Amino acid sequence: MNQVYVHEQPIRFSHCDPAGIVYFPRFFDLAHATMEDWLAEGIGQGLPALIGQRRIGTPTVSIQCDFAKTLRIGDTLRFELRVTKLGNASVQLAYSGKKAAGGDEHLAIRQTIVFMDLDAGRAIPIPADLRPKFESFLAAA
Amino acid sequence: MNQVYVHEQPIRFSHCDPAGIVYFPRFFDLAHATMEDWLAEGIGQGLPALIGQRRIGTPTVSIQCDFAKTLRIGDTLRFELRVTKLGNASVQLAYSGKKAAGGDEHLAIRQTIVFMDLDAGRAIPIPADLRPKFESFLAAA
Amino acid sequence: MNQVYVHEQPIRFSHCDPAGIVYFPRFFDLAHATMEDWLAEGIGQGLPALIGQRRIGTPTVSIQCDFAKTLRIGDTLRFELRVTKLGNASVQLAYSGKKAAGGDEHLAIRQTIVFMDLDAGRAIPIPADLRPKFESFLAAA
Amino acid sequence: MNQVYVHEQPIRFSHCDPAGIVYFPRFFDLAHATMEDWLAEGIGQGLPALIGQRRIGTPTVSIQCDFAKTLRIGDTLRFELRVTKLGNASVQLAYSGKKAAGGDEHLAIRQTIVFMDLDAGRAIPIPADLRPKFESFLAAA
Repeated sequence: MNQVYVHEQPIRFSHCDPAGIVYFPRFFDLAHATMEDWLAEGIGQGLPALIGQRRIGTPTVSIQCDFAKTLRIGDTLRFELRVTKLGNASVQLAYSGKKAAGGDEHLAIRQTIVFMDLDAGRAIPIPADLRPKFESFLAAA
Repeated sequence: MNQVYVHEQPIRFSHCDPAGIVYFPRFFDLAHATMEDWLAEGIGQGLPALIGQRRIGTPTVSIQCDFAKTLRIGDTLRFELRVTKLGNASVQLAYSGKKAAGGDEHLAIRQTIVFMDLDAGRAIPIPADLRPKFESFLAAA
Repeated sequence: MNQVYVHEQPIRFSHCDPAGIVYFPRFFDLAHATMEDWLAEGIGQGLPALIGQRRIGTPTVSIQCDFAKTLRIGDTLRFELRVTKLGNASVQLAYSGKKAAGGDEHLAIRQTIVFMDLDAGRAIPIPADLRPKFESFLAAA
Repeated sequence: MNQVYVHEQPIRFSHCDPAGIVYFPRFFDLAHATMEDWLAEGIGQGLPALIGQRRIGTPTVSIQCDFAKTLRIGDTLRFELRVTKLGNASVQLAYSGKKAAGGDEHLAIRQTIVFMDLDAGRAIPIPADLRPKFESFLAAA
């Protein structure tokens, strides 16, 4: 319980718009990169093998984001990732986006993914070997 | 009141992921394109001149999306755009994403933008010349 | 012989960088969109069905681009597309990028694609039913 | 002379297309990330401060890429970056893209950037403090 996965990425030229700040759709790309590295390093099951060998995908069924402060080229985006709810087939994730540890929250993402049998095309329970790993990141209510 | 802006875009190769369906962050890009064309054609004030000449931006302060059904290469994405709330400085938008008129909803986006003085860096009231245009797209409660 | 496929796209907010001009990798995305629409409208064989039903892909084996003048948000990008060489399995394309018909060339792309059997993973001759269509866009030497 | 900047990046879900391989325009994004980190770490002058404080940009005037072998999700892209020519205002870069040190070359990029006074909008000589650094990466002919 209560583990937090911390992931830092540089804000690059390509993320920024003519106003010099991050064009907001890029934050979802950055969050996806955080999720990919978390699956590999935090959960111990990387997405390439999950998709390629186990034929299981993790499509997003809902996502929301509140943007409180901007980020710009040269900033570091630090995501603190927690699991906020575990269903039978679904995992709810919360990403708190900051410029540094202990800093203000610039953006907050709430995302629900489901496990999906890619060949059958339907939702499946969270794989039993992974469920305890997800539980270790579950935030206390 | 009750105008709806309809905008269709092809789902392209570049939008799709290794599962052959749209990689979800691309939908926010596609929604932004819809908003840009709506500002130009529906509201009568294109974003390039709004930013470049009037120095007013429309940053997104919150966005959420529910994904009900996938879209894949070769599909058409039809967004039906409505205004769901008008604040002093903010506009709340709802995008209903379908494959065709009258079809099922594949995704639903709710977005709040604010008007921002780009030089002063702070929110400003919806410009008076544009407010009636936004009102014409306001959905009846 | 000598047909030219003309394709226009708006330069959007998402294409532009903090300097207010198109971030150059986006031009390759824009060129790909032109190629997709050309295959569907000019050649009569859209990429979705080519990939999905005929299991034939068109990977790019080389591409080069010279950038002479910038483009910025609100501009129109007009690509004039020609075939410059037809091999056994390959097609060489030239895209001349302008802001309007008869205008200066802002960028010039030269791209070579090959036809590929996606299941076998190897190059195949240009499909016989498509070859005459490609020939119709071949520029006189 | 003869320094090589080595930069490794994971190939992510978002880089790949419905065929499961990297969609080629993403390689230019990945090369740009390599250039950004090289400017900061190899040359000692990061792009954010170069643009923001010195008001100098590095637009690309030409780029070409040959694709020999594909890369797919879960692969590592290793770019080996060298300077192949130094002009008065321009720098020619060569990126050799591999999956690992000593491995086959999957792609090769040749790019020419120029130094640009962003306020005046014209090319300027390579800044004198940076020129020796660029020379240290110059490949022997």
